[in-house]
Amino acid sequence: MLNPLLVREKITQFYIEDNQYGDLATHIFDQTQIGTLTLKSKDTGIFCGESIINESFKLLDATVVISLKVKDGDTIHPEDIIAQIKGPVYVLLTMERIVLNLIQRMSGIATKTRRIADKIAHTSTRLVDTRKTTPGLGIFEKFAVTVGGGFNHRRSLNDGLMLKDNHIAFSKSMEAAIENAKKVVGPMDKIEVEIENEDMLQTAISNNVDIIMFDNQKPEWIAEHISLVPDAIQTEASGNINESNVVEYAETGVDYISMGSLFYAQNALDISAKVVI
Amino acid sequence: MLNPLLVREKITQFYIEDNQYGDLATHIFDQTQIGTLTLKSKDTGIFCGESIINESFKLLDATVVISLKVKDGDTIHPEDIIAQIKGPVYVLLTMERIVLNLIQRMSGIATKTRRIADKIAHTSTRLVDTRKTTPGLGIFEKFAVTVGGGFNHRRSLNDGLMLKDNHIAFSKSMEAAIENAKKVVGPMDKIEVEIENEDMLQTAISNNVDIIMFDNQKPEWIAEHISLVPDAIQTEASGNINESNVVEYAETGVDYISMGSLFYAQNALDISAKVVI
Amino acid sequence: MLNPLLVREKITQFYIEDNQYGDLATHIFDQTQIGTLTLKSKDTGIFCGESIINESFKLLDATVVISLKVKDGDTIHPEDIIAQIKGPVYVLLTMERIVLNLIQRMSGIATKTRRIADKIAHTSTRLVDTRKTTPGLGIFEKFAVTVGGGFNHRRSLNDGLMLKDNHIAFSKSMEAAIENAKKVVGPMDKIEVEIENEDMLQTAISNNVDIIMFDNQKPEWIAEHISLVPDAIQTEASGNINESNVVEYAETGVDYISMGSLFYAQNALDISAKVVI
Amino acid sequence: MLNPLLVREKITQFYIEDNQYGDLATHIFDQTQIGTLTLKSKDTGIFCGESIINESFKLLDATVVISLKVKDGDTIHPEDIIAQIKGPVYVLLTMERIVLNLIQRMSGIATKTRRIADKIAHTSTRLVDTRKTTPGLGIFEKFAVTVGGGFNHRRSLNDGLMLKDNHIAFSKSMEAAIENAKKVVGPMDKIEVEIENEDMLQTAISNNVDIIMFDNQKPEWIAEHISLVPDAIQTEASGNINESNVVEYAETGVDYISMGSLFYAQNALDISAKVVI
Amino acid sequence: MLNPLLVREKITQFYIEDNQYGDLATHIFDQTQIGTLTLKSKDTGIFCGESIINESFKLLDATVVISLKVKDGDTIHPEDIIAQIKGPVYVLLTMERIVLNLIQRMSGIATKTRRIADKIAHTSTRLVDTRKTTPGLGIFEKFAVTVGGGFNHRRSLNDGLMLKDNHIAFSKSMEAAIENAKKVVGPMDKIEVEIENEDMLQTAISNNVDIIMFDNQKPEWIAEHISLVPDAIQTEASGNINESNVVEYAETGVDYISMGSLFYAQNALDISAKVVI
Amino acid sequence: MLNPLLVREKITQFYIEDNQYGDLATHIFDQTQIGTLTLKSKDTGIFCGESIINESFKLLDATVVISLKVKDGDTIHPEDIIAQIKGPVYVLLTMERIVLNLIQRMSGIATKTRRIADKIAHTSTRLVDTRKTTPGLGIFEKFAVTVGGGFNHRRSLNDGLMLKDNHIAFSKSMEAAIENAKKVVGPMDKIEVEIENEDMLQTAISNNVDIIMFDNQKPEWIAEHISLVPDAIQTEASGNINESNVVEYAETGVDYISMGSLFYAQNALDISAKVVI
Repeated sequence: MLNPLLVREKITQFYIEDNQYGDLATHIFDQTQIGTLTLKSKDTGIFCGESIINESFKLLDATVVISLKVKDGDTIHPEDIIAQIKGPVYVLLTMERIVLNLIQRMSGIATKTRRIADKIAHTSTRLVDTRKTTPGLGIFEKFAVTVGGGFNHRRSLNDGLMLKDNHIAFSKSMEAAIENAKKVVGPMDKIEVEIENEDMLQTAISNNVDIIMFDNQKPEWIAEHISLVPDAIQTEASGNINESNVVEYAETGVDYISMGSLFYAQNALDISAKVVI
Repeated sequence: MLNPLLVREKITQFYIEDNQYGDLATHIFDQTQIGTLTLKSKDTGIFCGESIINESFKLLDATVVISLKVKDGDTIHPEDIIAQIKGPVYVLLTMERIVLNLIQRMSGIATKTRRIADKIAHTSTRLVDTRKTTPGLGIFEKFAVTVGGGFNHRRSLNDGLMLKDNHIAFSKSMEAAIENAKKVVGPMDKIEVEIENEDMLQTAISNNVDIIMFDNQKPEWIAEHISLVPDAIQTEASGNINESNVVEYAETGVDYISMGSLFYAQNALDISAKVVI
Repeated sequence: MLNPLLVREKITQFYIEDNQYGDLATHIFDQTQIGTLTLKSKDTGIFCGESIINESFKLLDATVVISLKVKDGDTIHPEDIIAQIKGPVYVLLTMERIVLNLIQRMSGIATKTRRIADKIAHTSTRLVDTRKTTPGLGIFEKFAVTVGGGFNHRRSLNDGLMLKDNHIAFSKSMEAAIENAKKVVGPMDKIEVEIENEDMLQTAISNNVDIIMFDNQKPEWIAEHISLVPDAIQTEASGNINESNVVEYAETGVDYISMGSLFYAQNALDISAKVVI
Repeated sequence: MLNPLLVREKITQFYIEDNQYGDLATHIFDQTQIGTLTLKSKDTGIFCGESIINESFKLLDATVVISLKVKDGDTIHPEDIIAQIKGPVYVLLTMERIVLNLIQRMSGIATKTRRIADKIAHTSTRLVDTRKTTPGLGIFEKFAVTVGGGFNHRRSLNDGLMLKDNHIAFSKSMEAAIENAKKVVGPMDKIEVEIENEDMLQTAISNNVDIIMFDNQKPEWIAEHISLVPDAIQTEASGNINESNVVEYAETGVDYISMGSLFYAQNALDISAKVVI
Repeated sequence: MLNPLLVREKITQFYIEDNQYGDLATHIFDQTQIGTLTLKSKDTGIFCGESIINESFKLLDATVVISLKVKDGDTIHPEDIIAQIKGPVYVLLTMERIVLNLIQRMSGIATKTRRIADKIAHTSTRLVDTRKTTPGLGIFEKFAVTVGGGFNHRRSLNDGLMLKDNHIAFSKSMEAAIENAKKVVGPMDKIEVEIENEDMLQTAISNNVDIIMFDNQKPEWIAEHISLVPDAIQTEASGNINESNVVEYAETGVDYISMGSLFYAQNALDISAKVVI
Repeated sequence: MLNPLLVREKITQFYIEDNQYGDLATHIFDQTQIGTLTLKSKDTGIFCGESIINESFKLLDATVVISLKVKDGDTIHPEDIIAQIKGPVYVLLTMERIVLNLIQRMSGIATKTRRIADKIAHTSTRLVDTRKTTPGLGIFEKFAVTVGGGFNHRRSLNDGLMLKDNHIAFSKSMEAAIENAKKVVGPMDKIEVEIENEDMLQTAISNNVDIIMFDNQKPEWIAEHISLVPDAIQTEASGNINESNVVEYAETGVDYISMGSLFYAQNALDISAKVVI
């Protein structure tokens, strides 16, 4: 569930950036007149953005009436009405762009996540995201992944300790790096280690980390080596995984597959906005 | 040129969101040790992001030394070094993700813009963007368009007056809408009107607006009607224009072609980051 | 129309700056008692400030009842009641100063603007402001000008491209400056050039800028040269124009007259505030 | 002395508001070229604004070199150079307007304050300001008063307890109001009471407040009654005091004269800015 | 009375810091279900925190119903219900920690203040706090002192002029320091001087400061010297005063006793929170 | 390691809150004069606050020279010099209070943490904190715990999923709650469950949570039941644990002991500040 105070603060910032001096077009007819904005899907996908619609328009005018027809996670089809928002025309016209932008983006992420999650639903592998969110929009994008049936990897740098190639390279050894990591993590922090070959895998296992990430490994290699990992250690595949090869990866038996492309190469779901009086 | 105070404020906000309590991994080895971060292109495209690199790392530590090898607008190829940043390892490792994210996004936009601008370079048509930027990142994305050889349409709602279908629908008539618009614009504000058929075109012309937008019209229709528009009025084509049909649109003789997809469907340009001590 | 989110953010900032630790005087009697604040004009002028009154008191307490007796742009006279605000006494007493300050200032600007605009109403010249607003109060002051019947010149540096003496001095030539300007402006941006003599005027005309500003020129000089300017180029007079000579300038036939003194030398319109229980 | 952190925060806010997307004009010639901005007085008055000049340009570029020729409180004459600022041309051109606006305003306040303070220098009366500062600019304006030789009355609502007509009206009696006030003030808080007639004066005296304000009283009335006030209670005259009658008020022997017009009706001191390369 | 805009801004900041990405636990059952949070005292003390309870939960959801059973300043005992808050369970569970933290802290301060104030109630000495508040929480802590029956010394550096050992050491002499202080204070500012021996005491008296602080002096010494101080000058004892010796200090006849330990060594009053559906 | 951007932002906020209008005392002698501030320990304990000292004074003036004599985690004794800061006197005097407040608080927490951690050093139990930090100061307090040799439990609500009594009460059953929790956690999130009796313990074990918290249990009870918990599940004791009984708890063999009192009842470590010229 999105933190409503942060949602409001973000939307306020976006609106002020877009409309510092007021929209000139609000002067050309009586904009206090009441109208109805209809948000309609132009595509098939998973809707995400309830709280965006609920929180945004009311920031401008508390009397706005929101009628949401779908819920986060619902499948929407072309011509499906997503919501109707009744209120002063200037509210509808000046907030419309920000709302569309956010819900199209979030629904696009939820849709892609669901599509991939469905592809691997016959396995026990979970689809997870990465920390490569759009700066400033992480809360929206991470939430959309969960709505699509995915799971959140680290939300921020504080959310667990990742030992990447750089961290290991700067330490005396991989053992030393893991040992030091264990000296600093709190009870709620996990340690994940990226491994690139069998030696590293063995070191990670014998040092009992929480998660082992097979970084840029081929599915065959993972399938071959995953049985070495004891049950108490989780596994994750990452790097060069896309919609074509994700099933192959999932069938190796890894616990998680992470895909940065959930955020990067998404196509926003197309949604139309029309105001009538 | 990006406003450096706003760049710093944005990066500060992004960094704090990502790293509120400090990165646990900064405790596992001596992070005040000096290292060098090399940003290297993994793709061919147009670089954009000088000021991101120049402003970001120094926010954390003023002694960081930046060595930029390319300039905004330069073509980069795989293995080209973009920049080397020398400073405390914690600075390099914790700021890296935000910098990469921004410069990959900006370079991706510049690259796509340049590719399309080049396609229509034999015409006098200019490629322009839209107001559909990523919330909070508009300053970066608008700038990237200019670096790629495109031009900025409205930066915000304050940047001119657009009469869209909704505005006209709520007015007594298109004439009335334009007349009212002229009553509110200042000397530096232009009036642009979306037209969808010949009647609207004639009305726009006879009311002497600044720019006429052919909204969702086929190139043939535009080519047929553009000669009706006097020289003093500029023209713009918009809606369903993509890399395949953009040349056809440009050859109609419109002054501007706007493409929201410069921001929407972009693929970030791939850039790698590697730290060595 | 003022952006209500920005109005609330500004008033919140002003109130917190003025009342960080709470007003000691709120402790000397029961301040939750309901009272009525009456805002009354002490002068004749144009009222401006509806949204200030509507947004401010409710920020402190949503139950406050606002009864506005006048609208932005109405003429008010001594003893005219502007508004009555009913709510807890502490709300009325601690917010009163900020509201008075803003509406007196805005009404003062609207009054001065209307007075001058009326003087030149027999011409087709429009009165415009400048970018010399009070830092932090630009949105209020620019809005007041429009309420008084004036028009807004650049709201910010992003609102069009001005070629001033400095810009021209730093370029190879005035032609080069204009040529470069045309390379960077987007479709909604106009180019305005300051000219100081006939040579510059001819260059501006032959290079087809959007607006020519007669900077610090005498009305006679303008009257003599304005016929050289083709219809498609607008003209503006600026510099040393005041209430005494404004008619003379307007009668030269310039499209716009800009006066920084709309903001600078204004006398706030006097408004009284009285609370009764 | 102005709080430098707050000065920087304010100027950053003003600059971002004025220049969100960067100045288009910064693209028309090489703006990294070094130039020199000369600030020159066009008027005679008291300069105020050292810290504005020192803090502002360096926010954009730390390498800017500031050469201040005058100090806060110095008298400046037409053609006097105030400061020379050497740095990248874009820094000089985009920050110039905010700096000019603030130092013209502050110098105008200092000049008016000094002129009036000089008029009453033969008395022991001190000139003080009011809380009617421009919202958001209080720190600059209050400081300018001190530079001009005036003194600051309440900086904010927290700065002492004023019993005005409203406060007294809402209490059982003036005695009750003062009694309650004494129950809430801390050791560093003073109590000031507005009095409008002899009865109120006697009550204020017998209840031993810290300061008695003669509110909207004629100088004769004050002169007649001031001897009733014991030495330990200070006195202030306020309301309808202007440059013409201020001496008359001062010669009544009041300790303080407050004038809201120090902020309201000021004329900014005229200062020019010229950049050369 | 706490400034409600600042209270809301602070709580919003605290909530966002604690809950940037939303509480994972809000997903494990239907959190829009309505529940009731009961705040109950586990200790005997003075309650302080009405406005915290009133403002906080409603920030998340305006439909929350607050039922406060006690008022600021009331004595509460174990098992006393302080308030019941009815609303969506996610609102209650995610805001609970911040509310508890603030009201326990404020009630703890009020309790300690009341206990000490009661001890010296037979004297005319007032208990005051210091400027040593918790950074960022000053407004809450200063308010709690007044609820407990204490008084606020300087709320910030702007709240009066303190001449401490350092200030005097850097001046030519104590006389010079006081003289200079008198040249800068406004009508509402008091001057307080720390004295450490009889010479300094005499100097302070003969220079007629507003308050004399006996800094780190034994009660006997104060008792011996306090008669030297004329009525018009107030006195304060400070330094090494605790619950054991505070009566001894009060009985010397000083006007104020200040204790930094009101904030420093407090034990928060224990309050429990329980949610039921 | 503390995030330096957030440290600077927090200190800036604290300084502006304390010094909005500038310290009056900065006007009584030449405050640009250079002085040296010496921070000296008055107590024995663990120092924490390097980055506070390094970042704070330089915010006001970049030329300040910091000479730190101790490092985070060092033991300090009475009269030990912690740091010497050389710079303009106004910088030293106005920033001193905020720095002292933060480093006394942080050193107090580090000292208490170290003392308790040392007591249980003969066991493998780790001392951890709670989420009950001072609002707004969490980053400082959490860091101080790690400097003292403790570990951080959840930094914020996003840092793992805690199933407390309320969460379980609102679910169908404890099994259902855990099952739902597993459906929402990402790979880096742990699930911790509070248990109050043997039934709950068995349920937690058989549902394979990450951490079991013995909530308000006696040490004997924990010692008796801890052997039931398999190695792969960690254990934590919490509730009513203090310096007297902490050893008893540690000797039960729990992995973690959490103590909210690390933040609550601390005594700030006493540190003195003295400026000389």
